[in-house]
Amino acid sequence: MAATTDTEREGRWVVKASQGSRDAINPVRGFEENLFKDALKARRTDIEFIKLSIGDTTALPVHPAVPEAVKKVLELGGCTGYGHSRGLPETRAALARLYSPFTLDPRGLTAEDVIMTNACSGALETCLTVLTEPGQNILVPSPGFGLYSCLAGSRGIKCHFYRLQADRGWEADLADLERQIDSETAAIIVNNPSNPCGSSYSKQHLLDILAIAERHRLPIIADEIYAWMTFPGSEFHMLSSLSETVPILSCSSLSKRYMVAGWRMGWIIVHDRQNAFRDEVIPGLARLATKVLGPSTLVQAAIPDIISKVPEDYHQKNLSLFHRNALHIMEILGPAPGLFPVMPRAAMYHMVVIEMKHFPEFQSDVEFTKALVIEQSVFCLPSPAFNTKDCFRIVLGCAESKIQEACNRIAAFAKLHYKE
Amino acid sequence: MAATTDTEREGRWVVKASQGSRDAINPVRGFEENLFKDALKARRTDIEFIKLSIGDTTALPVHPAVPEAVKKVLELGGCTGYGHSRGLPETRAALARLYSPFTLDPRGLTAEDVIMTNACSGALETCLTVLTEPGQNILVPSPGFGLYSCLAGSRGIKCHFYRLQADRGWEADLADLERQIDSETAAIIVNNPSNPCGSSYSKQHLLDILAIAERHRLPIIADEIYAWMTFPGSEFHMLSSLSETVPILSCSSLSKRYMVAGWRMGWIIVHDRQNAFRDEVIPGLARLATKVLGPSTLVQAAIPDIISKVPEDYHQKNLSLFHRNALHIMEILGPAPGLFPVMPRAAMYHMVVIEMKHFPEFQSDVEFTKALVIEQSVFCLPSPAFNTKDCFRIVLGCAESKIQEACNRIAAFAKLHYKE
Repeated sequence: MAATTDTEREGRWVVKASQGSRDAINPVRGFEENLFKDALKARRTDIEFIKLSIGDTTALPVHPAVPEAVKKVLELGGCTGYGHSRGLPETRAALARLYSPFTLDPRGLTAEDVIMTNACSGALETCLTVLTEPGQNILVPSPGFGLYSCLAGSRGIKCHFYRLQADRGWEADLADLERQIDSETAAIIVNNPSNPCGSSYSKQHLLDILAIAERHRLPIIADEIYAWMTFPGSEFHMLSSLSETVPILSCSSLSKRYMVAGWRMGWIIVHDRQNAFRDEVIPGLARLATKVLGPSTLVQAAIPDIISKVPEDYHQKNLSLFHRNALHIMEILGPAPGLFPVMPRAAMYHMVVIEMKHFPEFQSDVEFTKALVIEQSVFCLPSPAFNTKDCFRIVLGCAESKIQEACNRIAAFAKLHYKE
Repeated sequence: MAATTDTEREGRWVVKASQGSRDAINPVRGFEENLFKDALKARRTDIEFIKLSIGDTTALPVHPAVPEAVKKVLELGGCTGYGHSRGLPETRAALARLYSPFTLDPRGLTAEDVIMTNACSGALETCLTVLTEPGQNILVPSPGFGLYSCLAGSRGIKCHFYRLQADRGWEADLADLERQIDSETAAIIVNNPSNPCGSSYSKQHLLDILAIAERHRLPIIADEIYAWMTFPGSEFHMLSSLSETVPILSCSSLSKRYMVAGWRMGWIIVHDRQNAFRDEVIPGLARLATKVLGPSTLVQAAIPDIISKVPEDYHQKNLSLFHRNALHIMEILGPAPGLFPVMPRAAMYHMVVIEMKHFPEFQSDVEFTKALVIEQSVFCLPSPAFNTKDCFRIVLGCAESKIQEACNRIAAFAKLHYKE
């Protein structure tokens, strides 16, 4: 009689599921795939549906060099055999070259410092798995990407949320961050540029965070999937370029810069200047990589070409569109009653704070955004997707005319429901 | 301050790794990537190196319909956006149609019964994660695929090994299997056809295993990645086609039948005739799928074409080659002193039992196979890769002339080292 079964209940054969599977709650996918189902069914259909919910990238063209690179791999045989469990050596070498300018280590990086993973999600999961024991906790930004709490839940670790400040370009409240650290804290997650905030931190702010990590001897998991994706006039600093001491696992992927989110191609860059990861973490990462043997070799093998052949102006064109869209949002929603859009500097998201007291019809921003779907056919993700409250996120990756139209509808919606 | 750091040791900043990452030991990859490094360096180089270690498939041609299907996806835009977390609906529907004849449920299967995963490895990991709590145990075949113990180790669950009998076509010792069940047993892994044994069980033997699962109310994780890959004259029965009651999670992938092991494209088929999985396991699987959002949509989108366009005779041709290679092994190694090759019926592997007492120079089959690499430039995986002892595995996926040459060298090696 196994512990996982229960023949009492209704006399049926019932197999129990693990606690980890019960706690693997991804709020982003919850809203995207389930919780808005009724609202989406009930939505107004006489106007075009505008979906600004997930950081999908299908509204933007993929650069032709990307499918060309994959086709070339197919022509050469498809790279169909097993790769090394940590990834194809040439792919890891190409990524090492890409990231080498961003370490203070004069020797740069090598393929040995790179581990290929199933998307940035898989990179984050691997980092959490190697650095934490169930029962420990990690420091997580709020607002922050909902996947962090999902991965933590599935592993039985707790999230200690540190506050990002909307009125200070979403900088971390450093005192709050340090207060969250206790004897069971295993790592700090730093997401820069930020999803959902669209912030990109100054060098000084990152140095302040690094100083806290150093003081408490905590490694950093740097979610840098939006690296280099800053808007004109904004700066980006990779965390590893600012520290000679703090051990950092930097996670990223092909998804966002190359607009292939569905291809699930991610990696971890190991920055270990003081050999803090040498004895245990690096061997641990290597062992964890043997569990699933990395992402598809077909796309892995295309990465060297993708990186070298997609020109910088492709990225700049996309970023320039995101920037213009952000300006449209500021222009149209800035004057809307009860709404406070916060101008982003990077990534592909725009946060809008809602003064909920002026919208008494709605119990929360979830009800607010559901009504927005029903009445205006505009779908934005509400704040619980980002472990916060009283705001929603707009995805910037779509045509300008659509963002303008969506904002006009959101403004009309706010005007209609606003109460003094 | 943090539990994961240790500033005492050498005064250095040392980050500890989790127990799970220490116990994620994949013996197959261990031998493939590390433990044979010295032997491979020291091997004889005046003769061709013959690698029969991993179930790689690069020696066999991929059917042209496979790259064509992926190219078609690329032409149509590359399916670059996020898919549903459980996989693309059309892909899951195509797989549901493929597996529908193998359920006793008269309604067949639907896309809702299919979850796409990162390779069969990812399917197995997801199944273990949903069905087990750390501290519990699972029943695992010995000899069996080394990944089972790796995944179990990383999750903190124990393997109770049940014995497969070489002299009975590698059937499970049913009494031994039942004896391994205790109050902490969460599931039974059944691997049919078997890696490394190349067995394919009779209907009666599978019914006997199902009866034990039913008696103890244990769900089955069916590793059926080698489904339909039987040699001429042998039978294959999918476990789900034999039970009206036992809840089964069947794991498979594109890797082995279509020879694209590196593409990491797997799935779980949920068979739940009595709704034993309905309340907890199915929702648990759905939540776990939101952690990494499935395998690459690029290859997922190609699956309907791959399944429908690769003709059956492609598979038969490969199987016929494996079969001929197995016959060569029997012919050449059968008479070799101290070696007992066991004729396989399926999959792509051939197990050779070593009578170690006749090879006193070697402490174990690991030393035996290392010396074989050094002296004969033939690389076969030793038994610890399969949680057993005193045997090695030959991969059948290569040209007949190579298998013959390898066997001649193995026979010469055996003759040289054999002691009465």
